[in-house]
This record gives sequence, structure tokens and C-alpha cells, in this order.
Amino acid sequence: MTLTTASPYGIHRVIEPKGVLPQPAWKIDNTMEIFDNEILIDVSALNIDSASFTQIKKEAAGDVARVEAIVRRTVTERGKMHNPVTGSGGMLIGTVLQIGAKLAGKIDLEVGDKIATLVSLSLTPLRIDAVKKIHLDKDQIEIEGRAVLFETGLFAKLPADIPENVALAILDVAGAPAQTARLVQAGHTVVVIGGGGKSGTLCVYEAKKRVGPAGLVIGVSPFAKDCERMRELGWVDHALQVDATDAVALMEAVSAVTGGRMADVVINCVNIQNTEMASILATRDGGKIYFFSMATSFTAAALGAEGVGKDIEMIVGNGYARDHAKFALALLRESPKLRQLFDEQYV
Amino acid sequence: MTLTTASPYGIHRVIEPKGVLPQPAWKIDNTMEIFDNEILIDVSALNIDSASFTQIKKEAAGDVARVEAIVRRTVTERGKMHNPVTGSGGMLIGTVLQIGAKLAGKIDLEVGDKIATLVSLSLTPLRIDAVKKIHLDKDQIEIEGRAVLFETGLFAKLPADIPENVALAILDVAGAPAQTARLVQAGHTVVVIGGGGKSGTLCVYEAKKRVGPAGLVIGVSPFAKDCERMRELGWVDHALQVDATDAVALMEAVSAVTGGRMADVVINCVNIQNTEMASILATRDGGKIYFFSMATSFTAAALGAEGVGKDIEMIVGNGYARDHAKFALALLRESPKLRQLFDEQYV
Ligand SMILES: NC(=O)c1ccc[n+]([C@@H]2O[C@H](COP(=O)([O-])OP(=O)(O)OC[C@H]3O[C@@H](n4cnc5c(N)ncnc54)[C@H](OP(=O)(O)O)[C@@H]3O)[C@@H](O)[C@H]2O)c1
Ligand SMILES: NC(=O)c1ccc[n+]([C@@H]2O[C@H](COP(=O)([O-])OP(=O)(O)OC[C@H]3O[C@@H](n4cnc5c(N)ncnc54)[C@H](OP(=O)(O)O)[C@@H]3O)[C@@H](O)[C@H]2O)c1
Repeated sequence: MTLTTASPYGIHRVIEPKGVLPQPAWKIDNTMEIFDNEILIDVSALNIDSASFTQIKKEAAGDVARVEAIVRRTVTERGKMHNPVTGSGGMLIGTVLQIGAKLAGKIDLEVGDKIATLVSLSLTPLRIDAVKKIHLDKDQIEIEGRAVLFETGLFAKLPADIPENVALAILDVAGAPAQTARLVQAGHTVVVIGGGGKSGTLCVYEAKKRVGPAGLVIGVSPFAKDCERMRELGWVDHALQVDATDAVALMEAVSAVTGGRMADVVINCVNIQNTEMASILATRDGGKIYFFSMATSFTAAALGAEGVGKDIEMIVGNGYARDHAKFALALLRESPKLRQLFDEQYV
Repeated sequence: MTLTTASPYGIHRVIEPKGVLPQPAWKIDNTMEIFDNEILIDVSALNIDSASFTQIKKEAAGDVARVEAIVRRTVTERGKMHNPVTGSGGMLIGTVLQIGAKLAGKIDLEVGDKIATLVSLSLTPLRIDAVKKIHLDKDQIEIEGRAVLFETGLFAKLPADIPENVALAILDVAGAPAQTARLVQAGHTVVVIGGGGKSGTLCVYEAKKRVGPAGLVIGVSPFAKDCERMRELGWVDHALQVDATDAVALMEAVSAVTGGRMADVVINCVNIQNTEMASILATRDGGKIYFFSMATSFTAAALGAEGVGKDIEMIVGNGYARDHAKFALALLRESPKLRQLFDEQYV
């Protein structure tokens, strides 16, 4: 590998198939010698995307050693932690080891800085040297390893006032509350499916602020403990204990608490498949669905809405929105309850 | 099967898995004895979704007998023409044979009316009695058979002034120009990927009307003949001969004709995979992508945009929009050139 300037998108690292970008590529080059427009990171922890980690834990039948084997196999085969089943990744934190000559001094970053990558692990060259600890309940894996950030790759410097693993957890889903802020208006009825999860909680919180006193926020989870917590936190007007794979059950439950009006905005934050139809039936005609869930099927959404004649706008959950990291971290600072929740769950 | 009132969504016909709607179901009941809220149709032709038909023709290596075998196998196995590989369907035309007692007199439809279904074949109970003719180049199959429309199923009466197979062809993609009309504003730069195809042509036409003199419409096709036709029709300002699976090539081509501004709106109308990244790179920050293509991968779109830090809105191509059938047919009446094109291609 010659150390000359390479593609800002990392195309020079694509091994197969040729001609595509690193994200859609099957395999990328994870040689840890950087080009002059790349950044080398000493990785301390990975936050595996929830849809991916749920799939891996299932495949491993909950066994930690098998989870490690699956993660290592994926990285060896693909040069990146890109789950071949779910297609999703996650993100990482680490310390900057080296900054390519073309970037040094031109970006707000120095060797030794602690950062989180804001681009998916599904396109990030990664090498795992040792797995130190797997947190099955937090989707996090502490490792020794290296990663490379491309010239166009986004990152955030880790804040001094928030523990690393809390920052890692919230930055992974930072796009969700930022998009909620754009979609939700005063007076809206908002349904957050998977409202008891990590991204779901942030969306519920942000939605509650936006809808104001005339609006309604409805959280959905199939689990009693999640519903209880949603109620205790106080940001939902209703917590519906419904399995979102049961489309008609969710439609009826939402209809009951909205007097048949249904939702103006549905935000789907689950980590499991087959919840497109429930999202569609919970939405009013003319409403919007934001599919943040990486387990969403494009055809199921498109044909599902057509099949029931619902004229709604369905949005693909782009993980990125301008300043989403700043936005998400600010939520933790503004709400002690939210901060406490994340501290308890992710430290 | 007892002939009592059943689910307006057709849930009573789901065989497996239980509890889901007919679209996501693997198998539905295609018994041609209707419930009192269903409509029985004598089917004359199927219009197979382009992504599905492209896949089937490939699997059949272009052999008509094998295409027939694959279509028959799918309908036998699933009770519907729901391509298990692409997940997509298509639509059908036929004559109303019977209207359930609960609907008769309450809807604007009579026995003997010729209709097109506006819900996907991926959820429509279908039985094929004979395959009469397969039009490999038009995605259409003339059959003898029966189908059932559910209470919530949309349909359009076939107009007297437009040939049946032309109506079938345009109604299949009616959602695309209707959504284009909503998204495109005066002065916009619009890129239509697959602009030489059926839906693509309609989107190009509608976009040209909307952008006005200050706007720009750019059609993309990898084929010289398609580009030539786009230019001849005169609704594109530029016809770019680029393969949309080559993301960087499309980005550079769009950049060249827009002076680096890129597109405000990208409409993706291809019938092949791996064009998400090209769509993303062709869009300006803050722009929108409408993925009408059924070959779109949700994760490729979501993670692709994040991977290159593009703050764009990506919309799932809902095949339905209020009055989309009326809208699409009106285009044929308003433009003799469009009508001639469809007459030549689909009769
Ligand atoms: N678009 C992007 O860029 C992006 C970025 C990051 C993550 N994601 C995706 O966002 C989703 C959520 O991520 P997360 O980190 O917030 O995950 P999470 O904390 O695991 O939340 C998922 C939630 O869904 C709940 N749930 C599970 N089964 C359900 C069902 N049948 N009905 C209703 N709710 C159900 C879960 O309940 P339990 O926890 O009690 O099981 C959990 O509360 C994942 O699909 C992830 O892949 C997308
Ligand atoms: N969302 C919905 O509800 C809905 C409903 C109906 C259809 N659809 C989908 O819409 C899409 C288009 O349907 P259609 O009927 O308009 O199909 P179509 O007429 O076959 O058009 C597809 C176009 O894409 C072009 N194309 C092929 N490979 C390409 C490449 N590498 N780069 C750029 N363009 C390329 C094709 O060129 P050639 O023809 O020269 O090969 C053709 O012009 C399909 O994916 C279909 O499944 C969606």
C-alpha cells in the first residue's frame, strides 16, 4: 500500500466487489497503515447496533464465547464489524493515534484526543487484537484494536462531563432524537414503538417537549417493566403494552387512546423484524413514519402501506443529521432524569 | 370456510404465519369462494412488478416456459404472486364476477365492470387456471384465473378511452408521478435514475412541469438508446449515460452538469440492486431522495447516508397516494407524446 492521497470516501480500501463504496462492500482492507487523508484510532470499545447484537446473541444462544467468535469471524471475513444478516454496524470509541499529513492541522483533532466515530462500523476498517469484556445487556464490547476513519468520516470528541460508555451509548442513536425534533410539531399525537429502549426513550423525551400540552405521546413496548419505566419517567401520556409484530393489536390500542384519530407521527425504534405493518396501521392518513429501526424491510413498508391504501410518508432512518451528537449530549445535560437513566443502564 | 363477515384487511385469509396481514404473510388462502366483504375478479392479465420480473427472467435465463413455471410455483406455494426473492408483486386487470353482500350497492362498482387492482399482487389471493401469453418485454402475463379483493383493497375502473394493457402498465406505477408532484418545486434540480423506464419517464415528465424554466431535470440510464429517447422526448435538460451501480461515476456526472450543486430531489426508478449509494452521492445536503425502486435496501440507504455524513431525507416509495390512478391517467390524456410512447411500448 503506498501512502499517497486516497479517496475521501475510502474507496481505495474496498477489496470486493470493486467499484462500490466501503459500506456496501463485502470486504474492505483493514491494514492499519494509514493513507495521508485517514485517521488511525486506538479502539477501546465497540457499541454494536442493537438489531445486529440481538441477532448475534440469538445465533450464539446467549453464550459469551460464541458471541466473541461471531464478532471475530465477521471482522476477519469482512475487515469491518458489518453484520451480514442484519446489514447493520454500530460505532466505536477510542484514542487518536495518528492523523494523516493531509488532514493534520486542518481539522479540530489532535493525537491523544478521545473520540467516538459517528459513521457506522459497517464501513469502518477494524482490527481486533483482544476482546476484553462483552457486555451482553449493553450491546458493548471492550476491545484492544485499531480502526481507520476516512476523510469524510464523522466523529465527535468525547465530552469531559459524561462517562465514556454513556457517551458511546447515546451517540450511537444520536440521529433519532434529532430527527424527532424535526418531525414532531405542537399538538401532534406521536407513537414511539420500542419507546422503552435506548433510542426510543430519547425520542419519547424529545417528542414530549415538542407536542406541548395539546399533544399526546404514546410509548409502546411488549414488556411490563418497560411500560412501567416509561410511566415512571413521566414523558408518555400512555404506555401501551403491545407486541408490535401484532399489527392489528397495536392499531386497536392506539385507536382506543386517541379516539380513533391515530398518530400524526410514528417513530419506530424496535430491534426486531416485522413491525412495519403495525407502524402503518397506527398512523393516520397523511401522517408520517420514521423508521429508525435497522430491522425495517423496505418492501414490507412500501407494499404494506399500499396494501391498506394508506397515504402516508415513510422515512428511512438516516443515522446522521447535522449536529446530532451535540443535540443528543445536550439532552443528557438538560434532563437529570435522562442522565440518571443512562448512567444506571450504561455504566 | 364460512361465508361470514371477515377482516377488512383480509387477515382471515392468512394461512402462515398466523397473526400477520396478507402482505407480510408467507401463504394466504386463495379459495375462490368469497366472504361477504370481498370482491371476486375474473382476471385477464397480470402486470408483474419490474424488479420481480427482472429477477424471474434472470432465474429463467429468459426462457418463457421457465418464467411460466416460476410464476405458477410462486402462486401455488403462496396463494399470491409474491416474489420471495424481491418481496414485490405487481397488479392485475379483470372483470368483476361477484360482489360480497356487505359491499354490494355501497361501493361504486357493479358486476361486469372492468377494473385494475391498485393493491399489490403481493397480498392479493390469486388462482391461475391457464397462462395464455407471456410478454417478456412488457412485464405482462395474460392469464385465465381468479383473484379476490379485500374490503380495504383499492381499485380503479378501467377508462373507456385508454387500451387495457396501457392502463395496466401506467396504473402499476401510478404512485411515482403523484409523489413527484408533491416533492418537486419550481427551480429544483431533479435527478431521475432509471429515467428511461416506465415510472422514470412519468417522473421526468412531471418533474419537468414542476421545476419550470429555472429548474433542471436530469435523466440517468446506462443505455444509449434510453438516453436518446429521453432527449428526443425533450423533458430532460440532460440525459446522463451512467450505470447507477457506480456511485462515484454518477456523483461526478451530476456534479459536472450542476456545477457542483447536486440535486435537490433524486427519484430512484431502477429495477436493479445497489443504486442507493449513487442516489445519496447525487443529492445535495438537505435534499431528498424518493426510492420508488422495489430493489432498494433499507440498511444500504440508512447506513450509506450516515457513512458519508449526508443530512438528507430518504423516503420509502409508498405505491399509494390519494387519487394516484386519476393523476396518472390524466397525464396520458394531457400529453399526446406520453400517450404515444405508452401506446407503442405496451400495446
Ligand atoms: N438508523 C440508524 O442510523 C440507527 C443507528 C443506531 C441504531 N439503530 C436501530 O435502532 C433500533 C433501536 O436501537 P436501540 O439502541 O434503541 O435498541 P434498544 O435499546 O434495544 O431498543 C429496542 C426496543 O424495542 C423493544 N422491543 C423489542 N421487541 C418489541 C416488540 N415486539 N414490540 C415493541 N417493542 C419491542 C425493546 O424492548 P426490550 O429492550 O425490553 O427487549 C427495546 O425497548 C435498532 O433497530 C437499531 O438497529 C438505527
Ligand atoms: N413503490 C411502488 O409501489 C412500486 C410500484 C411499481 C413499481 N415499483 C418499482 O419501480 C421500479 C421501476 O419500475 P418500472 O416499471 O418503471 O421499471 P422499468 O420500466 O423496467 O424501468 C427501470 C429502468 O431502470 C433502468 N436501469 C436498469 N439498470 C440501470 C442502471 N444500472 N442504472 C440506471 N438505470 C438502470 C432500466 O433500463 P432498461 O429498461 O434499458 O434496462 C429502466 O429504464 C422497479 O424497481 C419496480 O419494482 C415500485
